[in-house]
Amino acid sequence: MIDYQNILNQISQKVTKDKNKGKIASYIPELATVDLNSFGIHLQLVSGEQFAVGDAHKSFSIQSISKVLSLAYAMSIIGTDLWKRLDVEPSGNPFNHLSLLELEEGIPRNPFINSGAIVIADILVSNLENPKSDFLNYIRDITGDNTIDYNYKVAQSEKETGFNNYAAANLLKSFNNLNNDVEVVLDFYFHQCALQMSCTQLSKAFHLFANKGKCLANKARLTKSQAKRINAIMLTCGFYDEAGEFAFEVGLPGKSGVGGGIVALLPNEFVISVWSPGLNERGNSKLGMKALEQFTTLANQSIF
Amino acid sequence: MIDYQNILNQISQKVTKDKNKGKIASYIPELATVDLNSFGIHLQLVSGEQFAVGDAHKSFSIQSISKVLSLAYAMSIIGTDLWKRLDVEPSGNPFNHLSLLELEEGIPRNPFINSGAIVIADILVSNLENPKSDFLNYIRDITGDNTIDYNYKVAQSEKETGFNNYAAANLLKSFNNLNNDVEVVLDFYFHQCALQMSCTQLSKAFHLFANKGKCLANKARLTKSQAKRINAIMLTCGFYDEAGEFAFEVGLPGKSGVGGGIVALLPNEFVISVWSPGLNERGNSKLGMKALEQFTTLANQSIF
Amino acid sequence: MIDYQNILNQISQKVTKDKNKGKIASYIPELATVDLNSFGIHLQLVSGEQFAVGDAHKSFSIQSISKVLSLAYAMSIIGTDLWKRLDVEPSGNPFNHLSLLELEEGIPRNPFINSGAIVIADILVSNLENPKSDFLNYIRDITGDNTIDYNYKVAQSEKETGFNNYAAANLLKSFNNLNNDVEVVLDFYFHQCALQMSCTQLSKAFHLFANKGKCLANKARLTKSQAKRINAIMLTCGFYDEAGEFAFEVGLPGKSGVGGGIVALLPNEFVISVWSPGLNERGNSKLGMKALEQFTTLANQSIF
Amino acid sequence: MIDYQNILNQISQKVTKDKNKGKIASYIPELATVDLNSFGIHLQLVSGEQFAVGDAHKSFSIQSISKVLSLAYAMSIIGTDLWKRLDVEPSGNPFNHLSLLELEEGIPRNPFINSGAIVIADILVSNLENPKSDFLNYIRDITGDNTIDYNYKVAQSEKETGFNNYAAANLLKSFNNLNNDVEVVLDFYFHQCALQMSCTQLSKAFHLFANKGKCLANKARLTKSQAKRINAIMLTCGFYDEAGEFAFEVGLPGKSGVGGGIVALLPNEFVISVWSPGLNERGNSKLGMKALEQFTTLANQSIF
Repeated sequence: MIDYQNILNQISQKVTKDKNKGKIASYIPELATVDLNSFGIHLQLVSGEQFAVGDAHKSFSIQSISKVLSLAYAMSIIGTDLWKRLDVEPSGNPFNHLSLLELEEGIPRNPFINSGAIVIADILVSNLENPKSDFLNYIRDITGDNTIDYNYKVAQSEKETGFNNYAAANLLKSFNNLNNDVEVVLDFYFHQCALQMSCTQLSKAFHLFANKGKCLANKARLTKSQAKRINAIMLTCGFYDEAGEFAFEVGLPGKSGVGGGIVALLPNEFVISVWSPGLNERGNSKLGMKALEQFTTLANQSIF
Repeated sequence: MIDYQNILNQISQKVTKDKNKGKIASYIPELATVDLNSFGIHLQLVSGEQFAVGDAHKSFSIQSISKVLSLAYAMSIIGTDLWKRLDVEPSGNPFNHLSLLELEEGIPRNPFINSGAIVIADILVSNLENPKSDFLNYIRDITGDNTIDYNYKVAQSEKETGFNNYAAANLLKSFNNLNNDVEVVLDFYFHQCALQMSCTQLSKAFHLFANKGKCLANKARLTKSQAKRINAIMLTCGFYDEAGEFAFEVGLPGKSGVGGGIVALLPNEFVISVWSPGLNERGNSKLGMKALEQFTTLANQSIF
Repeated sequence: MIDYQNILNQISQKVTKDKNKGKIASYIPELATVDLNSFGIHLQLVSGEQFAVGDAHKSFSIQSISKVLSLAYAMSIIGTDLWKRLDVEPSGNPFNHLSLLELEEGIPRNPFINSGAIVIADILVSNLENPKSDFLNYIRDITGDNTIDYNYKVAQSEKETGFNNYAAANLLKSFNNLNNDVEVVLDFYFHQCALQMSCTQLSKAFHLFANKGKCLANKARLTKSQAKRINAIMLTCGFYDEAGEFAFEVGLPGKSGVGGGIVALLPNEFVISVWSPGLNERGNSKLGMKALEQFTTLANQSIF
Repeated sequence: MIDYQNILNQISQKVTKDKNKGKIASYIPELATVDLNSFGIHLQLVSGEQFAVGDAHKSFSIQSISKVLSLAYAMSIIGTDLWKRLDVEPSGNPFNHLSLLELEEGIPRNPFINSGAIVIADILVSNLENPKSDFLNYIRDITGDNTIDYNYKVAQSEKETGFNNYAAANLLKSFNNLNNDVEVVLDFYFHQCALQMSCTQLSKAFHLFANKGKCLANKARLTKSQAKRINAIMLTCGFYDEAGEFAFEVGLPGKSGVGGGIVALLPNEFVISVWSPGLNERGNSKLGMKALEQFTTLANQSIF
């Protein structure tokens, strides 16, 4: 038996010693107020046991981590039709994501780059009666936690400064790959990214990907095949241009967000969520990446 | 003495025989209603004489030709400060203009690609009390013709479908190279492009570039050096990705628009305006290009 | 117990019925002579058992599959120093691989695009006394099969027509990322790609990646961590621009070659090698891809 | 009458005071030995008069300036067929010239970027009996100066370090746009670039472009139309990514080389050659650019 609590404690002690904790994302003014010293891990085994250390119960802005959840929801609604509007290849170049969208005529590379997630948002807006509340209910439902909510200030903050996302949505629209109004889709998208969740809640939400599509309450939310596919996309596209590095160093499917959260999982075994708001120069949580490297080394577990 | 009237007549007869007159721009629904057989030329000598053939007095949507006039107006207001926000190099790639803007961090290649013209529009919005009417008055003033007006339907049509321009403006904004609201700048920009003018009026408006900065009424509107510079930019950047071809075949500074108009000029000698709404595959008036090639051959005049 | 032989038989029957078998690679004249109807699979379990169907013992040109073997050999010699000269990120764009190399100043995206494999070849040339025979001995050694050899005609054929590889090697050299002469490095590289192996031999060669770095004869050839890393790179970068698709559809680390071979593996479980020389439009074996999709579905095994 | 001698003297005095004289090109070791303080101007009027100042008679490596002369020679031999293999559009991006060649499938943007000049070299190699001596004779012939020669050390120096040109030539070959062997074409190309000429000799060589295709000895070497076209290409493509800037600041067709030379001309009026070996950050002679700006201002002459 692996002593997971001991491992989490070790990681927390070692990793938080690092004096260079990275930089808090400042492009969304509302995010810049977080305490740089926050650090938490939550581990949820598929077998049911849980382990935690540090600020595991403190909620933060999940940002791009939400893209996995919106993809799962969209997939459960329209199935494979979704792939007519976007691809599943890694994006490669980080420095010119609109360029790529332009060169590939409005077909986003994958659902985890912004333009891809905006297409997913468009699909949800088309298919849901009350997109924002329906999506929130979906998240509350799969985690079994009704306290989860949007941070409306963060959503508003993005709305006022998210010009790059407006550029992406309009470019999609110019290529006829956005069916709803730019404003309506982005309003949904900014709220989705502004979900406020703790490591504990994230581990519970991602349980369905580790458990063949079944959520914590053991209800099927995705087919086994859909869960497997989302895991594959997380592995190849989950970390901006650090996807290869993460697969290489950690060896688990996962997804990061500029709020400093990272969720990773080993199919049939566990979900692990880490939070440390300082980012490395590639936009992923600096200590979070280190913590996960430590974890797969100490627990000796990876998909490879 | 060159018999210009005879030359224009010859060109008109020869060029309009071509059965393949190109394709009318359809991306702006309002433009698609024009008669493909329209064809006119107007020649204005700096010495004062005028010559015309065909639909020279019929007005059409000048579209991108307006970018030279807005640049001139902005230059006359803020001078060389303008070049802090955009460059004067040819754009090279036509197929990925947003890519270029992204790679060069929000500094448009030149004032004649859309993103560059949007920056110029932003400058005018910042510096004019009533941007739309002030700009219209400027055009009426330099041509001495108060009948010139915007086509409000065309402006509205672009507003509803110009997603690519919204994408460019938002991308500029994300790089802090747009000081006013996207909506306000694009409202001005769409009106500017929707100016309705005839070949005759265009020749008069461009007189200041052929006449060392002095307009038809002999009033200095630009310094001699500014006029020279705008001519240089027209030569290197005036024809999308056909700039090299035009310099090569025609050998005059000029500017085209998707409405099918082209204006070209020989400094100190003349301005020539042509209109034929069918476009070649690079977006320039098909017969217009041919007419100008014929003109420089028959009149034996070019800057080279 | 899974009845693997039955599964292989089923796949072979089903897949070979497809009338559209893809196109044989013609850019290397010597490759174009292969029989389009060739089809074979070989499955090697880590536990020792083997299963085969069709042309599993017929040898073919392994081409890019060799890049995994040269990477493994280079890693076993110089370890992590290797990553100073190349990256481990997916390449994204297939259509402009030299562009990417140029933009990223001579640092190849990963060891499986041509420029990356040429850097690995350069490392081997620097570190081996007799590069070509030493590498061949390494391959013979890890497979325990001394009959494996280069196809010298194929190597010569590439040498005479591989202008794109000469371009890549010279571009690397211009960025000081090639220490030996272009001719010397490419001579090695073209031989490496011209290795002639059967599915059976490939399964044996890749055994070390499925078995924590230990080759078939149970000798450690890589550290456990190195084997894990190579698996991660295969998953994210093994299939040109179809890497995401393969991870998505098959869910195993693997590598393809334009000779029509594909090798894939499940760590601690098995290696599977497929050969069918007709390629899909992305340059991977058409029936080979289908066979592997079938296999993971029928055997119900994947890393996700 | 303009007092040209006085103007040249003024420019020389003013410009050479600049303490920051730019940087001598160091990528060709043999070029790095030149004296940074060298400075010369030569002005050749079409009417026959000549004016000079400073090191106007000292010879230097003309490098890319030779591309105009090889283009003229090729044009005089095969005429417009030449344009089947390359384009005449400005290249735009300086930082990724191979990228552009790759994206545009082996068709160089224009004859003045390296890949374009290599295609011209290939044409000459195909059409000349003794390419190197025939080209040298052509240059001696149009200038009426038999002392002009290649600098064989510079040619050898480029051969040993010109990996980027080898990359370009091989990329052209991979797109079937190079008919002769890479080595043979580049041997010619490196010699062509290694022509050693003085300002005086350059002014004489370029006389045919200012004089409707007739060389100094009044012999037709190009048609009037060909001369005009080469002037147009110099204006739009003559200064790497500073072409727009040069048209804008100087307003004359011209061509620069990394040896620090620049030649510019006003059709029917004059040719002016400047040499100062220190380069600005865009690879053009720093003081040379300044001198030409001064010249067109003081002489009040430009094509615009």
